[in-house]
Amino acid sequence: MLSFTDCSKLIDEALQKLNLPAEPKGLYEPVDYILQLGGKRLRPSLALLAAALYTDDYEQAMPAALAVEIFHNFTLIHDDIMDKADVRRGKATVHKKWDDNAAILSGDAAMILSYETLNKLPDAKFLNAFKVFNRTAMEVCEGQQYDMDFENRLDVDLNEYLGMIRLKTSVLLAASMQMGAIAAGAPEQDQLALYELGESLGMAFQLQDDYLDVFSDSEKFGKATGGDILNNKKTYLLIKALESGEKTSVNELKMWIEKKEFDPKEKVEAVKAIYKKLGVGEDAQLAAISFVNNSIEILNQLVVPNERKKTLEALIFKMMYRET
Amino acid sequence: MLSFTDCSKLIDEALQKLNLPAEPKGLYEPVDYILQLGGKRLRPSLALLAAALYTDDYEQAMPAALAVEIFHNFTLIHDDIMDKADVRRGKATVHKKWDDNAAILSGDAAMILSYETLNKLPDAKFLNAFKVFNRTAMEVCEGQQYDMDFENRLDVDLNEYLGMIRLKTSVLLAASMQMGAIAAGAPEQDQLALYELGESLGMAFQLQDDYLDVFSDSEKFGKATGGDILNNKKTYLLIKALESGEKTSVNELKMWIEKKEFDPKEKVEAVKAIYKKLGVGEDAQLAAISFVNNSIEILNQLVVPNERKKTLEALIFKMMYRET
Repeated sequence: MLSFTDCSKLIDEALQKLNLPAEPKGLYEPVDYILQLGGKRLRPSLALLAAALYTDDYEQAMPAALAVEIFHNFTLIHDDIMDKADVRRGKATVHKKWDDNAAILSGDAAMILSYETLNKLPDAKFLNAFKVFNRTAMEVCEGQQYDMDFENRLDVDLNEYLGMIRLKTSVLLAASMQMGAIAAGAPEQDQLALYELGESLGMAFQLQDDYLDVFSDSEKFGKATGGDILNNKKTYLLIKALESGEKTSVNELKMWIEKKEFDPKEKVEAVKAIYKKLGVGEDAQLAAISFVNNSIEILNQLVVPNERKKTLEALIFKMMYRET
Repeated sequence: MLSFTDCSKLIDEALQKLNLPAEPKGLYEPVDYILQLGGKRLRPSLALLAAALYTDDYEQAMPAALAVEIFHNFTLIHDDIMDKADVRRGKATVHKKWDDNAAILSGDAAMILSYETLNKLPDAKFLNAFKVFNRTAMEVCEGQQYDMDFENRLDVDLNEYLGMIRLKTSVLLAASMQMGAIAAGAPEQDQLALYELGESLGMAFQLQDDYLDVFSDSEKFGKATGGDILNNKKTYLLIKALESGEKTSVNELKMWIEKKEFDPKEKVEAVKAIYKKLGVGEDAQLAAISFVNNSIEILNQLVVPNERKKTLEALIFKMMYRET
């Protein structure tokens, strides 16, 4: 049975065999650099796993898998410029290693490369996958825009927030699964069901991320915790806390958000204490669990041999109990 | 008969009817803004005119025409950030009116929108047009990269330069015509011939641009002349002059290129005088004319009623004698 580790390995190998043109170096080297930085390869693995529900020839879905991974990396290149992020996966980001111009243009090239890769699907499947892919690409941009808009607002409500993370994160996981199913020739209703499964999984993933950024063991999490708190990021936890109606806590939170000078450790500890008092970490986990449950339910209802569902099932449960 | 003016008008109208989503404003307003800035609409008009060689229902080519125009505007948004250009068509550029982040993200959205628009072609035509479009998109990025690379080199030769402008400018005009022909159901060999016609036209267009930036009447040209000289831009004229072997002129040119402090007017006049002495303006025009001749020859050989060729013929001749 195809495991998640198998998937990551297959993707890594396929990315190494992309054979980008050697020239112009300034355009293709940054693309190659970010694609070789590694990572969990979650999105392309979901495409392969969705295909593997229907066929042993799941590598049919490789063009779709690579397209979403390359597209995801395009968004990372451009987002890192916008967020002024200097480090990704322990290495310099593209705009830091080269410069902003190189990151803008090589990001564009990565996006075009993702379409090129998708086009390796047979025509009929490409036509279907293209529609999902292109709609999703635009939604991801919308999500990034909302995320930036939210930075300057204190009145973001939970629904808006859920809508934003759906666009910014979930739809690409959803599209990965639907396109994997399309590539494998799955029935149309299964393609749509797998979109929904991926969407729920994406929501759970992001909500867990919000939780882990505050409460995880930072060594296991692989990055310092509290980053969202220091950046006043509108997360599920912060919005839920601001909506709690607990006047003292809300005022204290607002004070920390507005404070320009502070000791980072003190701020993280203080906000964390408020979150604990209000129980918003548990709220985020409960919300995540309900999305995970939805994923499981959709998986259960698919009419494919149970044997074929094992890896996805394990992956979904892992999501629920993940510490990193 | 469909005129060039008809084409521009049809394109303007179609762009106004695009109906971009209202939200998120920060994403779609900049896209709408640049699309409404106007311009000659040369590329989409070429798509319609190529289609009109074969059918009175040339509006079949509108999805392809809009796709190239929107793609072209995506490149303008991102190039203007990279070139730190503040003004385009007399108005503020996107990154100037909003900011770099808005320009990066809305440029991305414009690119995705161009694919979305192309997808309005019927499936079989879309599949053919997509391959041309996507390859061209990557070539345009390569052209922009070479253009930036050339800024830091003094040893660019004419062949490299011609290769760069082919990628940066010509292939998009070429693709516009090929996709117009595809949309109209033209024979495959005509599709390829029209690609070549557009490519030659693009080369002539850029070489004329190099000439006009130095020698045109700046009022008619619509922008100050001498910009390329002030920016030490590697144009056909500069490269030809540096390759001339005329030691005194070459040394004088290099002196102006290296000089950090100078009176702009003095530099433009001095370099212009060298160009005049060496006759490189005429060289550029001769090169342009040979590309124009190639376009005319290809047009002549197409097996369609002569009547249908009139507008393209006029457009090509206008290119030869253009002052703006």
